Amino acid sequence: MSAPDRIEVTYRVAVGRDRIAAVAADIAIEQSVELPLAAVHDRRVLDEVVGEVRSITEVAEGLHQVVIGLAIETLSGDVAQGMNMLFGNTSLHEHVQLFDVDFPAVVARDWPGPRFGLAGIRALTGVEGRALTCAALKPQGLPVDQLAAMCRTLARAGVDVIKDDHGLANQAQAPFVARVQACQRAVEAVRRETGSRVQYVPNLIGSPRALVEQAHVAAEEGCGMVMMAPALVGLPMFAQMVAEHLRVPVLAHPSMGGAARIAPPLLFGKLYRLLGADAVIFVNYGGRFGYSRDTSMAIAEHARAHWPGVHAALPVPAGGMTVERVPALLADYGPDTMLLLGGSLLVAGEALFERARAFVSMVQGQ
Amino acid sequence: MSAPDRIEVTYRVAVGRDRIAAVAADIAIEQSVELPLAAVHDRRVLDEVVGEVRSITEVAEGLHQVVIGLAIETLSGDVAQGMNMLFGNTSLHEHVQLFDVDFPAVVARDWPGPRFGLAGIRALTGVEGRALTCAALKPQGLPVDQLAAMCRTLARAGVDVIKDDHGLANQAQAPFVARVQACQRAVEAVRRETGSRVQYVPNLIGSPRALVEQAHVAAEEGCGMVMMAPALVGLPMFAQMVAEHLRVPVLAHPSMGGAARIAPPLLFGKLYRLLGADAVIFVNYGGRFGYSRDTSMAIAEHARAHWPGVHAALPVPAGGMTVERVPALLADYGPDTMLLLGGSLLVAGEALFERARAFVSMVQGQ
Repeated sequence: MSAPDRIEVTYRVAVGRDRIAAVAADIAIEQSVELPLAAVHDRRVLDEVVGEVRSITEVAEGLHQVVIGLAIETLSGDVAQGMNMLFGNTSLHEHVQLFDVDFPAVVARDWPGPRFGLAGIRALTGVEGRALTCAALKPQGLPVDQLAAMCRTLARAGVDVIKDDHGLANQAQAPFVARVQACQRAVEAVRRETGSRVQYVPNLIGSPRALVEQAHVAAEEGCGMVMMAPALVGLPMFAQMVAEHLRVPVLAHPSMGGAARIAPPLLFGKLYRLLGADAVIFVNYGGRFGYSRDTSMAIAEHARAHWPGVHAALPVPAGGMTVERVPALLADYGPDTMLLLGGSLLVAGEALFERARAFVSMVQGQ
Repeated sequence: MSAPDRIEVTYRVAVGRDRIAAVAADIAIEQSVELPLAAVHDRRVLDEVVGEVRSITEVAEGLHQVVIGLAIETLSGDVAQGMNMLFGNTSLHEHVQLFDVDFPAVVARDWPGPRFGLAGIRALTGVEGRALTCAALKPQGLPVDQLAAMCRTLARAGVDVIKDDHGLANQAQAPFVARVQACQRAVEAVRRETGSRVQYVPNLIGSPRALVEQAHVAAEEGCGMVMMAPALVGLPMFAQMVAEHLRVPVLAHPSMGGAARIAPPLLFGKLYRLLGADAVIFVNYGGRFGYSRDTSMAIAEHARAHWPGVHAALPVPAGGMTVERVPALLADYGPDTMLLLGGSLLVAGEALFERARAFVSMVQGQ
């Protein structure tokens, strides 16, 4: 079988039966030649480059699912140009959502994909047969010594992965280098003390140059994992960081994901994975964001789904979860998951250790 | 007067009177400490870092405008972290739009801003006292010689600025280097022939490394201007390109702008300008995108508005415009504008020269 020459892209379009055929044809043109067909005079372009409407299905009253076949040659093997062809100008139409993409292997191989993935993070942390635990260092505004002390407390409580809040950047109050050194030393001290393999995960954020420098610092300090928000640093830069500058697993943060216009399961579960995220933080239902249970579960399923040649990524539900909800989370997501509790641990104040310990125990089944 | 320590950020929130106070308080927390206040034990953080709700105004039934004061120290002088604090996690809430930002000078100076701007593009093209004209080379899929021939025709017709379609990347059919060489030579030949100062504008797109290489090629070939889509290449990389790798005016393309979640006048008129775009392409009303006249006009106003220390940018309305609408466009936008016609010129086929000539004549007032 020869490689396909089209990639199938699914859009959800909020228009009714009377207009959907015309709107689907418009999307096929907008995402390819971006020109009325009357202005396309080249036979090859008409046959091989213009987008093709493959199917139109009514999902509900006034909502249709449209599958368009786009010519793979237009993606030119590049992440930025790939997103340009998948959603570029059509993202400006309020009635269209980029819903799903069926990546042929010939396209997927141009995106990094997770290098460690779910299995790599299990190997790194030494956690097998149960869900992993994750907590966050915050709030921004605290000085380095307080963040490092919090890191030590959480590590001693047995949390597997302790990440920076995504709002911790390179602020004067807790500069990146000093913070990473102090927090990494804190987890290393606890490792020696307890024999655990707890990981501290610094948040890399900034211009491309700053990201490369931060990756260098994280490597020098011996951090076993790092975090970036693909939508903030830019999807192409995220992929380039993964491919060229990072030798440890990468945790993707959803900040700036604008997920309402790109279906969350596609963006967080599939695209972030294909960009090289080894673990993907996403919003769980019933927390402080309005995702449905179906949406949250679909993100996790996409992240872990069998995909030949692309490692499974570790789903990380988060966003206003509490210790009390841990059993329900485990029932929903199963063991191939990392549970991330943020504020609900830190709200314990002086009782942070006990609260974190309760979280850890519930997940460890003790 | 001392520098302000807060930046005022305006959100539009689709909730009614009964819930708006609570939702506004939630946004203030989400965009700062991201932690219940009960978990913030540090006095300085409570006083100086937690976001402040400055005002809540009802805009319409079920729609409120909320102004939040965010601590400038949390932005850490960086574009990625700036966007993280302005909209990061809140972008995941479907009911919230980032509506406007009032940039204090102390924040704006950390973003590049246009280096040439409206005045610089007038100087480059030699066009004074009237609107500029712009046309696009497309469709993708054509080989280099056909694109260069089209470029020559449009240049001979007197178009001021001829840009690549944003879908032209580095496809095998028309590779970047060969295309830029051929199109740049085409405009240079026409310049010698007619004495005009017509500009060819290549589309830079790809990974950060590819962008730097493309900028180098464009400079070597003598291109007087380049185009990038900030939302595709990533806002931080766009800013870094402007600040470090480009010595010519930059035209911003709206592709992947997801403008429905960030108010278009803010995203295209203000943020893209502050990121260093000298000219900003945006969607005009009444074309193939559903913007209102108010939205389109507001984008242009933001791009040109007086802003101490930040050059005015050149507004470039586009998106399904026709030659027939040129008088209305000129009436709307006035002379400090560049009008971009794409498909409506190319649909003329063999009559491309005459159609482009008619466009040029209408704008030149001949």
